[in-house]
Amino acid sequence: MLEVVDTIDALRERVGERRRSGHTVSLVPTMGALHAGHASLIERARRESGAVVVSIFVNPFQFDRVEDLERYPRSLDTDVDVCRGLRVDLVFAPSVSVMYAAPQMMSVDVGRLADHLCGRYRPGHFQGVATVVLKLFGIVQPDVAYFGEKDAQQLAVVRRLVTDFNVPVRIVGVPTVREPDGVALSSRNLRLSAAERQLAPCLYSALRHAAASVDAGATNAAEVARDAATLIPADDRLRLEYLELVDPDDFQPATIIAAPVIAAGALWVGTTRLIDNVRCIPRIRSREASMIDEPTGAAR
Amino acid sequence: MLEVVDTIDALRERVGERRRSGHTVSLVPTMGALHAGHASLIERARRESGAVVVSIFVNPFQFDRVEDLERYPRSLDTDVDVCRGLRVDLVFAPSVSVMYAAPQMMSVDVGRLADHLCGRYRPGHFQGVATVVLKLFGIVQPDVAYFGEKDAQQLAVVRRLVTDFNVPVRIVGVPTVREPDGVALSSRNLRLSAAERQLAPCLYSALRHAAASVDAGATNAAEVARDAATLIPADDRLRLEYLELVDPDDFQPATIIAAPVIAAGALWVGTTRLIDNVRCIPRIRSREASMIDEPTGAAR
Repeated sequence: MLEVVDTIDALRERVGERRRSGHTVSLVPTMGALHAGHASLIERARRESGAVVVSIFVNPFQFDRVEDLERYPRSLDTDVDVCRGLRVDLVFAPSVSVMYAAPQMMSVDVGRLADHLCGRYRPGHFQGVATVVLKLFGIVQPDVAYFGEKDAQQLAVVRRLVTDFNVPVRIVGVPTVREPDGVALSSRNLRLSAAERQLAPCLYSALRHAAASVDAGATNAAEVARDAATLIPADDRLRLEYLELVDPDDFQPATIIAAPVIAAGALWVGTTRLIDNVRCIPRIRSREASMIDEPTGAAR
Repeated sequence: MLEVVDTIDALRERVGERRRSGHTVSLVPTMGALHAGHASLIERARRESGAVVVSIFVNPFQFDRVEDLERYPRSLDTDVDVCRGLRVDLVFAPSVSVMYAAPQMMSVDVGRLADHLCGRYRPGHFQGVATVVLKLFGIVQPDVAYFGEKDAQQLAVVRRLVTDFNVPVRIVGVPTVREPDGVALSSRNLRLSAAERQLAPCLYSALRHAAASVDAGATNAAEVARDAATLIPADDRLRLEYLELVDPDDFQPATIIAAPVIAAGALWVGTTRLIDNVRCIPRIRSREASMIDEPTGAAR
């Protein structure tokens, strides 16, 4: 039986009851506008734990642009229905004044994890994400929390957050859910016009191209990224903000690819900003493979 | 029966056992070199909770000067004996490599709470304090934690830390313990020569003078501080780093004193830096009192 609560005390009381009944508690933090990507997180949480909490909170502190915050889709009633259908136990839907009851003075300095990609183009974004996630962890005290791999840098920030502050929460990354044409599900897709939506798949195509290049043996990260970027059509409605290959742990730029990297991109489609990423795994240069390169008959 | 543990897993296991037995868990975070000030924190924790954890960790991250870190007294064996005498349940004495197993990438940005007093003169100090306290809270997950009022700005930082990150730990401030001559107990007192020790009481005297001025009706914070500072003797071995009156919540400088403030000072005695503070409570200007100021016969 789904319960919707909007205060910290009520949430803690309900979670406490379930914990005392011996349930493990999982948290799926969201900003609402739930889609099939969120559903895959919730379904996984449902399978793996006794009590599932979904938080729905559009966190103003992580928006670097006012118009993005204002345009962010909000649909609490529908979201609650989605949660009910997925057998969620608790929806935590606090107001801004509940989450920031006292003016927030402190925040999480995420360090160099935010130096590149979205961290570079959205100043303060990951500081805001890390701060609100830490607050949610303090409020809910879940055993496990689920995050989508679509937001790869966010996932890396959250993983590091629990390591660096010894937060006793296990973080699970869940694979990106895509439309049949490859577009990653995102609440921001709702903002695209039909014509813009038709342009959107090029981001994932470009990222897959990077992965294919790496698989084919390319090792120069800058070249791979440049090649991949050529798959974004020249169109006034499209602007590639970044397409880079980075280390999956610290999100620093890769130079020579000798281990798995993440190809990540941000593409403006009209006034909507889409992000996506693909893991690129370099071909293992086996002893045999390297021997093939040598002239026949080169005795060893 | 006291147990000493030095790993996070062992600590969590032992704390978990006690929590499952229904004990509330309290934490007294220390840097060791335990004295009667620490003892008063531990005794209070002992009275108020079922399981008492004392952490002993000299946190390199909060030292702004290498020589201060290197000179900081260390006496684990004696400290453990003290804890045993005070019926502590668990001593958590991790190494630096246990507390910072991965290189610490993230930290707590404490905001304007660190703009003045020790925050101004020890850059990064409160960022280091807040970070290690948050880590200790994540590791121990105590119900209550005890901190000395001697470190007033630290106490304010910790109070704000749990508010701003919704950490489910109750913070208790414990009054400063003093020597008969008024000097606040501090592990750093051990560094003073006998002659230096004789000079040390002037800091508390100056701060009490500030409180007396406020009690006597003084309202100009800068004047009160300046007057108080005259009680520090002119002596080559003494250097007053600061003596200021600040708001007890956000530690911003007071100007006109209309509500309780904290008079806080840092005094170098030779190569040792001592801090102390006193609460200053302004006289309540009652209606009657203000009427007395008016010329007799001024009709209302």
